[in-house]
Amino acid sequence: MDERFFILVPIGSIIALCFAFFQAKKVLGFSEGSELMQKISRSVRQGANAYLKRQYAGVGLFFAFMFVVLGVMAFTGFLTPFVPFAFITGGFFSGLSGFIGMKIATSANARTAQASSESLNRGLRVAFSSGTVMGFTVVGLGLLDLSIWFFLLKYVFYADLAVDSAAQIRAISAAMLTFGMGASSMALFARVGGGIFTKAADVGADLVGKVEAGIPEDDPRNPAVIADNVGDNVGDVAGMGADLYESYVGSIVATVALAVSAGYNFGGAAVPMLIASIGIIASIVGTFFVRCKENTNQKVLLSALRKGTYVSSAIIVIAAYPIIYYCLDCANNPARIGVYGAILSGLIAGVLIGFFTEYFTSQTYKPTQDLAASSLTGSATVIIGGISLGMMSTLLPTLIVGISVMVSFICSGGFSVGYEQGLYGVGISAVGMLSTLGITLATDAYGPVADNAGGIAEMAHLPAEVRERTDALDSLGNTTAATGKGFAIGSAALTALALIVAYLDEVKIKAPDFNLDLSITNPPVLIGLFVGAMLPFLFSSMTMKAVGRAAQNIVVEVRRQFKEIKGLMEGTAEADYATCVDICTRGAQKEMIAPALTGIISPIAVGLILGVNGVAGMLAGATATGFVLAVMMANSGGAWDNAKKYVEEGNYGGKGSEPHKATVVGDTVGDPFKDTSGPSINILIKLLSMVSIVFAGLVIKFALF
Amino acid sequence: MDERFFILVPIGSIIALCFAFFQAKKVLGFSEGSELMQKISRSVRQGANAYLKRQYAGVGLFFAFMFVVLGVMAFTGFLTPFVPFAFITGGFFSGLSGFIGMKIATSANARTAQASSESLNRGLRVAFSSGTVMGFTVVGLGLLDLSIWFFLLKYVFYADLAVDSAAQIRAISAAMLTFGMGASSMALFARVGGGIFTKAADVGADLVGKVEAGIPEDDPRNPAVIADNVGDNVGDVAGMGADLYESYVGSIVATVALAVSAGYNFGGAAVPMLIASIGIIASIVGTFFVRCKENTNQKVLLSALRKGTYVSSAIIVIAAYPIIYYCLDCANNPARIGVYGAILSGLIAGVLIGFFTEYFTSQTYKPTQDLAASSLTGSATVIIGGISLGMMSTLLPTLIVGISVMVSFICSGGFSVGYEQGLYGVGISAVGMLSTLGITLATDAYGPVADNAGGIAEMAHLPAEVRERTDALDSLGNTTAATGKGFAIGSAALTALALIVAYLDEVKIKAPDFNLDLSITNPPVLIGLFVGAMLPFLFSSMTMKAVGRAAQNIVVEVRRQFKEIKGLMEGTAEADYATCVDICTRGAQKEMIAPALTGIISPIAVGLILGVNGVAGMLAGATATGFVLAVMMANSGGAWDNAKKYVEEGNYGGKGSEPHKATVVGDTVGDPFKDTSGPSINILIKLLSMVSIVFAGLVIKFALF
Repeated sequence: MDERFFILVPIGSIIALCFAFFQAKKVLGFSEGSELMQKISRSVRQGANAYLKRQYAGVGLFFAFMFVVLGVMAFTGFLTPFVPFAFITGGFFSGLSGFIGMKIATSANARTAQASSESLNRGLRVAFSSGTVMGFTVVGLGLLDLSIWFFLLKYVFYADLAVDSAAQIRAISAAMLTFGMGASSMALFARVGGGIFTKAADVGADLVGKVEAGIPEDDPRNPAVIADNVGDNVGDVAGMGADLYESYVGSIVATVALAVSAGYNFGGAAVPMLIASIGIIASIVGTFFVRCKENTNQKVLLSALRKGTYVSSAIIVIAAYPIIYYCLDCANNPARIGVYGAILSGLIAGVLIGFFTEYFTSQTYKPTQDLAASSLTGSATVIIGGISLGMMSTLLPTLIVGISVMVSFICSGGFSVGYEQGLYGVGISAVGMLSTLGITLATDAYGPVADNAGGIAEMAHLPAEVRERTDALDSLGNTTAATGKGFAIGSAALTALALIVAYLDEVKIKAPDFNLDLSITNPPVLIGLFVGAMLPFLFSSMTMKAVGRAAQNIVVEVRRQFKEIKGLMEGTAEADYATCVDICTRGAQKEMIAPALTGIISPIAVGLILGVNGVAGMLAGATATGFVLAVMMANSGGAWDNAKKYVEEGNYGGKGSEPHKATVVGDTVGDPFKDTSGPSINILIKLLSMVSIVFAGLVIKFALF
Repeated sequence: MDERFFILVPIGSIIALCFAFFQAKKVLGFSEGSELMQKISRSVRQGANAYLKRQYAGVGLFFAFMFVVLGVMAFTGFLTPFVPFAFITGGFFSGLSGFIGMKIATSANARTAQASSESLNRGLRVAFSSGTVMGFTVVGLGLLDLSIWFFLLKYVFYADLAVDSAAQIRAISAAMLTFGMGASSMALFARVGGGIFTKAADVGADLVGKVEAGIPEDDPRNPAVIADNVGDNVGDVAGMGADLYESYVGSIVATVALAVSAGYNFGGAAVPMLIASIGIIASIVGTFFVRCKENTNQKVLLSALRKGTYVSSAIIVIAAYPIIYYCLDCANNPARIGVYGAILSGLIAGVLIGFFTEYFTSQTYKPTQDLAASSLTGSATVIIGGISLGMMSTLLPTLIVGISVMVSFICSGGFSVGYEQGLYGVGISAVGMLSTLGITLATDAYGPVADNAGGIAEMAHLPAEVRERTDALDSLGNTTAATGKGFAIGSAALTALALIVAYLDEVKIKAPDFNLDLSITNPPVLIGLFVGAMLPFLFSSMTMKAVGRAAQNIVVEVRRQFKEIKGLMEGTAEADYATCVDICTRGAQKEMIAPALTGIISPIAVGLILGVNGVAGMLAGATATGFVLAVMMANSGGAWDNAKKYVEEGNYGGKGSEPHKATVVGDTVGDPFKDTSGPSINILIKLLSMVSIVFAGLVIKFALF
């Protein structure tokens, strides 16, 4: 292909960033409401900033340490000299995505509340625009960084290597994978830390405020209420931003890495980036379809959001064909056009997983309604019902991913041409799935903004109808979030598979004579498989325990304030919000270390003991089990949340009844499931692969077996 | 080796059966207590008999159907003609083991209550003796059937094949594996059906009786009380008997099957059976060490039980050496003695897994105490704590199994001689782990008897101290049950691994030219891995939902009786126990079908679509994930149970307090975890392999890929 076309990639990313910028301008043009609303919003903003500052400082230390480790490895010849820098930039931009998303979200919350006091649609517009900022910042930054590295490596650092040679693309992809590892590390810290913060604050606020003191949710008398709202921003927004940045970048770098072994070289490496670039344009076009008349109902709003996504997908379906035809030189190699099938399979799989996620977690369908009914016999049956619902919901996504892998593999010539070509197709299907991330993330990220707006409406004593409107937006956000989760989990599985193959490629390059025996009957592979299957469980246990411990500290503090601050319950004295924010911040900082390190150390430790074959087994085990467990945790949590909402809508006794209390227990259990442990597993399985790739040289040299 | 030595195998089994017979005589010599106690015991016995009769009738239909299917396959040349018969006998004897165990348990319950009214030790003696009957019936029947088939096949049916040739042993092991499949199918039905019965009755009785009506556990006014006690017998006794029969037989037949590919032929096939035979003698000797003075405390009792197990293990350690030396002809092949290391590694791994199971689930250790402490903040934190405890507890068992596989593999020459030899060692380590099953099962199986005795003491209004003694026995039983679970889960993982290898051997025999590509990057393997990882989740979901549905019916019935039977609460009218038993029976019958069929149909369906490689991936995925999930579910459940007991002992407010209620919720959730879904997974992973083996020919011929 003509390399000049590649300039479309940075152009796409700049368009995305400009679009995000104008959307941000638009959001900031709305009124922030009354003095009190501004004050509350400022408190949340300050708390969130304070948290992120502390988090980035802590994570900075980790990155500095890793920089030194990677530097030493680069110095001793285990890695190329760019690796440490690529690692740092990956982390930096992942963090930046989360930071910008959070900035706009904390600026949009009061504005959404104010706009909702005028009309539901106006509220939606503010919230959705702020989601758009987040969505396009993530894809814009992701593609920008990737193309900068690609240009630098190709035309500056590796310009001496034969242009478009396998050696050149291979060297480039190795550096870019480290970039991905940086992004994954950052994402894991952000997801785990943010997840711990938000759920500790949430659980702490609920347990003492709602249950013990009997005051409503988001009541300003609750000392943990600001921390709770800060949590939505640092967990659901900043954490999600870093997370999806990582997914996006990860799927692209994994596919770039597979382009070489598939023999596609530059053209093959360009495909995922060009698809991503065209995906940005498609997503922008899609956002213009998200519009509707004033005063419509939720169903219409939802179909408006969906329309945007479908339009974007349709554009990709059309535009992907010429890209593949041209980049893979299909004029001379007609069979290669089959890769197009991989894009389609990825897109369809993403939509289907999203649909089934919604089916299992939305109160408009039977599973969650049945779960709500089980509250009639108490909280134990709600828990059993929710866990078995989550477990049952793993069936279809697993089959969909399986079919998608098979279709991508076959379409891309896996059986007819060669394994490598087929596996490249699997990577491409992940890219296809995430190509519309700009708009799907926008429809996803506005949920937490609406949630926060509801909190502000409550604390600022706005009329009840405002809260009702923000609740409607929030509930709509839950539905779109389900679709977003489908994409996140599905793409994580496909990307992780592509990364496993990239790992094995790396091993073959580093040690061409290495005796790879990946048969599942080879004991290191088998043992690796067991260890890999166990890791997501261990990791989830650590993150859930961390939430529990951090929440415990909040419970103690809130109880103390209720006891010691005179006049707090009467509303004559103000609670000490800052201390609760600080406790959550410190708790999250401390607790995020162990789980994150588990993700980084495990592949190195397994590698040093069981060797390359063991690592491959571990990656396969962790990917398969992690995928299933993540789906289960996300869907159990989502269903519990919505079963509670269903009861609150007046079914089975409504708010305050015994069944309602039972569903509250379910929701509390579901919180760390769906917002801390579940989504972190998606990152974990990719991080494991990337760490394995970066440390492959070390493992080959020093492994015991 | 001299084939005449093989006669030691049936001799061992006959000794076991005689020992069981005399122990049964001993139990039946004790008094059954008052008229009322006899009546209650009779009700339980009748209910249990009625259930088993119905279960065997239902399962009989399934076996008849399978007999026809296998018969057709045998007729068309896919299988040898013995397969259908081997399948039937495996199922028959597995069921018989459960039946005999249940017979003695239902005869021992009132006798244990009566003996406990005299002294704690007398109660222990009756209960332990009845456990011994169960333990030795299982190993005796298992070994008897195996040796009968072995003799018939070797000296009658395949006598025309060259004696001790690979072909002969191969033909024998193929038939014996079908025998294993029959046992597994039966065990799955018994475990799932019994598990559903017992938990439906338990949950139903608790929810209405304890929670709604406020009457104590085992109160005769509760209409579900007899069903609850029947449940202990059909689930914990008959289910466990069929289950462990299957484990025992499964580990032996898997190893026999591997003996050929390892090149050991007859001698290698004899090793597992001779080890099992010597294990019987060792276990009998061990039981004589289970004795202590009158009026000692629980700790002494526990160490008495432990002493028996340790003595048995020590005997095996000594006796296994000459067996291996002689059978594997180590005089001429000194390296083969390494297989002895596999036995040791299996024995040690079993003990270690048992120890860590106890550590994580006993209230004498920190994890369960911490879990009990989390009840102070309500049931949600108890649930989160229990799940994360269970997840955390998977780390060590996974590493232990991993190390055990590696050690067995290396000791048996996996790296130095050949893979096949190493994998044979893995099978042998499972046999080593289960060699002391006679006594470990005895220390395990008396728990439900003590539990039942407590129920009878309560219903017959015996003095409170009797109930205290039976509770003490029950609690001791929980601890030994933890050890038993460790053996069951650990051996299931090792046996399943051996069976996967046996499957691949079978494929190589059936289709020597088949292109086996078991690399984890081969898409069918990879997709199989995902499907396999999902199956234990799907299966657990089905079994948990089944418990919920069956319990729901009991709740409705108990409520009806409380409302409609005048004088029931006052104790002037008698409850209609039989209807509750009948509802549980019908519920369990209906609900056990779908999960059991999932285990049988999945490998065939996956095989027909993804082919042999896909099946291998599925088996590996299901084994790894199933092992981890089973450990998690068993330990979460165990810890919840004991956290409740810890609170009931007077901690955090004791019985009736809010923390106690929170732990009751945990225990209720844990019931299906630890007694239905968790233990069934152990059987599932082996059944999947055995079905794959039996249907290998079909899959090779008709697979899509």
